[in-house]
Amino acid sequence: MKSLEIRPRVQKCIDEFIAEQRPILNKVSPSLNELADFTQEFLSGGKRLRAAFCYWGYVGAGGKDSQEIICAATSLEFLQACALIHDDVMDASDTRRGKPSIHKRFEKMHKENKWLGETKQFGMGGAILLGDLVLSWADELLLKSGLDAQDLLRGKRIYDLMRTELMAGQYLDIFEQSRGGGSLENAFNVIRYKSAKYTIERPLHLGAAMAKDDDEILKNYSDYGLPLGEAFQLRDDVLGVFGDPEETGKPAGDDLREGKRTVLMEMTFEKANASQKETLNKLFGNLLTDDDVALLRQIVTESGALAEVETMISTLLHKSQQALAMAKITSQAKEALSELALAATSRRV
Amino acid sequence: MKSLEIRPRVQKCIDEFIAEQRPILNKVSPSLNELADFTQEFLSGGKRLRAAFCYWGYVGAGGKDSQEIICAATSLEFLQACALIHDDVMDASDTRRGKPSIHKRFEKMHKENKWLGETKQFGMGGAILLGDLVLSWADELLLKSGLDAQDLLRGKRIYDLMRTELMAGQYLDIFEQSRGGGSLENAFNVIRYKSAKYTIERPLHLGAAMAKDDDEILKNYSDYGLPLGEAFQLRDDVLGVFGDPEETGKPAGDDLREGKRTVLMEMTFEKANASQKETLNKLFGNLLTDDDVALLRQIVTESGALAEVETMISTLLHKSQQALAMAKITSQAKEALSELALAATSRRV
Repeated sequence: MKSLEIRPRVQKCIDEFIAEQRPILNKVSPSLNELADFTQEFLSGGKRLRAAFCYWGYVGAGGKDSQEIICAATSLEFLQACALIHDDVMDASDTRRGKPSIHKRFEKMHKENKWLGETKQFGMGGAILLGDLVLSWADELLLKSGLDAQDLLRGKRIYDLMRTELMAGQYLDIFEQSRGGGSLENAFNVIRYKSAKYTIERPLHLGAAMAKDDDEILKNYSDYGLPLGEAFQLRDDVLGVFGDPEETGKPAGDDLREGKRTVLMEMTFEKANASQKETLNKLFGNLLTDDDVALLRQIVTESGALAEVETMISTLLHKSQQALAMAKITSQAKEALSELALAATSRRV
Repeated sequence: MKSLEIRPRVQKCIDEFIAEQRPILNKVSPSLNELADFTQEFLSGGKRLRAAFCYWGYVGAGGKDSQEIICAATSLEFLQACALIHDDVMDASDTRRGKPSIHKRFEKMHKENKWLGETKQFGMGGAILLGDLVLSWADELLLKSGLDAQDLLRGKRIYDLMRTELMAGQYLDIFEQSRGGGSLENAFNVIRYKSAKYTIERPLHLGAAMAKDDDEILKNYSDYGLPLGEAFQLRDDVLGVFGDPEETGKPAGDDLREGKRTVLMEMTFEKANASQKETLNKLFGNLLTDDDVALLRQIVTESGALAEVETMISTLLHKSQQALAMAKITSQAKEALSELALAATSRRV
């Protein structure tokens, strides 16, 4: 896919940046190699969606391709790494993309070396600090990317807004989950900030702002990016319930066990009949057998919630593609962004 | 104290910055006011040592006083807030400066509202995210301070290094504690990175770099700042064992209960005789009665470790003051930094 062809160049930025940090860590203590190793491993692979949206946002606004813009865009992959590492600590998730999550890796180190103190506490501490480190490295990479200082500072304003919205959206997520959810509107608000803006709209804005100072393009990107971002998260919600563990890297029906109040689940609660609601209340958010998962999936489907969410996804995608057609951006970027929309919302992860 | 007279201006930057963030949080959801409130409260009071070192580092290098440099320096107070908030989560410390730590505040919210899920998990999640938010706000404030773009980017290089050293130093701290310490050298390495560089040397460097591009001044500041920073942390270690709870805001003998392998404690282990060592091994790092604390304090004193650490503090302070006298910086800054050295290492917190 042409729009994702930047991936090896993103990897190069990641590798070079981490290689630059190694001697700094090593000077503090040779015992810190793990911090670089864990980061390197965590940041290998993936679609690089956020970097791609930023890059094409830049090109669409008339920016010229260069390794500098690739590195500026790559900063978003570090930001995302922090979000995931800390998310796994907060959710106590043991796996990420089918492999042990970062706190689990630190726990393993602690256990294998028979160190003092509680293994879990060490694991959590290591993961919190590694998350802080990669969050710090993210804006370091952005500002060291080599783009012009004024362009960078214009981009940094968007980047700042994006980070605040991300942290706020993440907090809103745990907050709504703790309150027991309650409305579709709240669930939509969470995905708007936690995903739509953060994954798509703001990366596009960041790219655009580094290319030129032009509010119209920002508006175009919002019109394309926000519906697409919502569709992206709705697809993720569907995969959280119906996804194949081999493809999602998460246990089957993970969101059902966690009791995640996604749009799909709020919709299911709304549409369920009395007996379905009884089953939902009994099972949702608990330890589930495979049969329980199958039963809950059936309710999500039979209540009509799944079909409605699939319709929403199609409608949002259509809206997004229409906005893209009207956007005043380069035709090369239009083509790439049209492709990326598919990559972000296809049924497979 | 003249060197700390910048404090109300630091407070003004904090207040204005948080006021600017409120509408952004509010737009995400009115439920997010707590994030701003908790930050505001957490950032009220304190000596503002890091901001002061940065400010005087700037003035010493010939920079002119302005509200812009005050705001750039204030960014360090946000960075420090993140370090403390996350530190309290990692250590499971319930209090900070005599008040409930941030995760405890989120736990309280959860409990009072009778929300779903585990109270502890919500508290931890809230504190991790609030720490991430203030870590993000720190460099945002630095780069929005209004100083010249080139000066800011020069400063940002130091800031980046400082953050990496801080996170690495924090990790080294939990790492050494888990390994069971073992050497004075390791304990010194931890305080070098976790405290000396982060609290004093790098803030001075940050200020200097934003004033001018001059390696000699950076060197002068290292010669003054590193020994002072070590003395600062050694004083903190002494207070962690002997400090008055009313002054330190922590329970008496907190470090003894936690089993912190500080320089003072490594020294005590080294100098203790056989029977003292037996008591140390039995009590150190455990739940302690007031009598146990008194007994351990006696061993720290009678082993000669306390006297040796006090001598070290004096020697380091002397070295620092000598370096200051030779430094090629403005006389106004010399006076202020001489005062600050006392403020940082006085027996009271």
